[in-house]
Amino acid sequence: MKYFTEKDSVETVNNRMGDEINPRLRQVMASLITHLHAFAKDVDLTQEEWDLAIDFLTRTGQICSEERQEFILLSDVLGFSMLVDAINNRRPVGATENTVFGPFHVAGAPVRKMGDTISLDGKGESCLFTGRVLDLHGEPVVGAKVDVWSDNADGFYSVQQPGIQDKWNNRGIFITGEDGAYEFIGIKPVSYPIPDDGPVGQMLAALGRHPNRPAHMHFLVTAPGFQKLVTHTFVGDDPWITSDAVFGVKSTLVAPFEHVRDGRTEWRSPFDFVLTPIEGA
Amino acid sequence: MKYFTEKDSVETVNNRMGDEINPRLRQVMASLITHLHAFAKDVDLTQEEWDLAIDFLTRTGQICSEERQEFILLSDVLGFSMLVDAINNRRPVGATENTVFGPFHVAGAPVRKMGDTISLDGKGESCLFTGRVLDLHGEPVVGAKVDVWSDNADGFYSVQQPGIQDKWNNRGIFITGEDGAYEFIGIKPVSYPIPDDGPVGQMLAALGRHPNRPAHMHFLVTAPGFQKLVTHTFVGDDPWITSDAVFGVKSTLVAPFEHVRDGRTEWRSPFDFVLTPIEGA
Repeated sequence: MKYFTEKDSVETVNNRMGDEINPRLRQVMASLITHLHAFAKDVDLTQEEWDLAIDFLTRTGQICSEERQEFILLSDVLGFSMLVDAINNRRPVGATENTVFGPFHVAGAPVRKMGDTISLDGKGESCLFTGRVLDLHGEPVVGAKVDVWSDNADGFYSVQQPGIQDKWNNRGIFITGEDGAYEFIGIKPVSYPIPDDGPVGQMLAALGRHPNRPAHMHFLVTAPGFQKLVTHTFVGDDPWITSDAVFGVKSTLVAPFEHVRDGRTEWRSPFDFVLTPIEGA
Repeated sequence: MKYFTEKDSVETVNNRMGDEINPRLRQVMASLITHLHAFAKDVDLTQEEWDLAIDFLTRTGQICSEERQEFILLSDVLGFSMLVDAINNRRPVGATENTVFGPFHVAGAPVRKMGDTISLDGKGESCLFTGRVLDLHGEPVVGAKVDVWSDNADGFYSVQQPGIQDKWNNRGIFITGEDGAYEFIGIKPVSYPIPDDGPVGQMLAALGRHPNRPAHMHFLVTAPGFQKLVTHTFVGDDPWITSDAVFGVKSTLVAPFEHVRDGRTEWRSPFDFVLTPIEGA
């Protein structure tokens, strides 16, 4: 045990951990302390900046509620959520990539008949979403659960407007059959800002960043023996496609949105999902 | 602008900052992102660990109130407060070192006559604190304001027990005269645990660390033309002297506490403070 010095700050703090603690906790905390102290030393963090940081973190915690998770938002805009997602979902070439889950999924959406519409309010530009769920060999995955959700024509998810619209508007679950195909009618999603009236929004403004996400449809695709796929498909000509506030866009997830003449819907977006097998399953 | 990848995560996030922002903010945020992402990559942070971190930060923010600042406590136990203090108060050899300010100072304590007692409740082992305020050449600093505070015999600061004890118990301000000397009677301070019934206490327990601080007397010494000195003197034979929960101990701040036979007080603690001039002042 030795006293604290600026030079040996990391070792002093890390040596304080007990002998009997969880080894993984020890590893994670030791790395956190190493990088946190290196940050302060790199920039010669001032006392005033530390004061600002304490105030920022406190306000971020205090604005959290049942309906709002400002720390997840913070993690999102720092690219940290996408990084953790990437680290935990490294996929083989050809498999569909993950992206952030987002806070607007609601479990227990109604299972709908293949081809049904999820747009219950009839607002927005109708779009046929269609494609197949495949394995890495291109074989159809039978019985895959395709859970989908998007915002409405005004840029809000149903949970953001409780009482104003049906809870299941623009939501639904579709189960693939023998051909692995899925098909449903929703709307061409629209871009929207993340909640920017709190500390995270203030930070984005100070950083010269906008709060917008490019338009996207959410997909949660699960099937026995395969890794859970949490992803979006993105509208490629969206003005925010290269500057998603939460860094969710991957080039492989930009989907075709084709204008349809004389069809059932105004738009059509074909996209196949390729699932990754669980190792040893 | 490019899409997010695990490999280029830092550049992707940092390149998103606007051109016109505060250059210091750009520097600090770029370094923060660099170290934060390096941490996640170093340990291959799991989704479950990220969930735990979000929950921990949220609870830390939610427990904050007018009376409690859990984020400062978190910064303290990670050695981050001491590090920022060290970075911002590098002192020449011979000058008294800083340590953490702590949350229990109250501005506006009564100015007392040199030699007066600050122990208003009469509890605890009486101690004479005595010494001089000097400049780097050993000359007395006249008119230095010596603001002192300590816990009571039960290990609580007066602000932690509102109504139970006098607001100014174990607090006072003394102004040095021509000889730069100070002298007052307080108690030999006692060790105490930092508040450990919240998220930070839970973290300390998981890390196999105790929440205790070794006994110390607080000093805030100010004088025109000199850097503000925020420090403690520590009781050297305290059981927690080498394991202060907030890393506040420096070897130069361990003070003599001498048992007195047949004196005005049971203990005597002599300590000189050497102030650092403000550059250019």
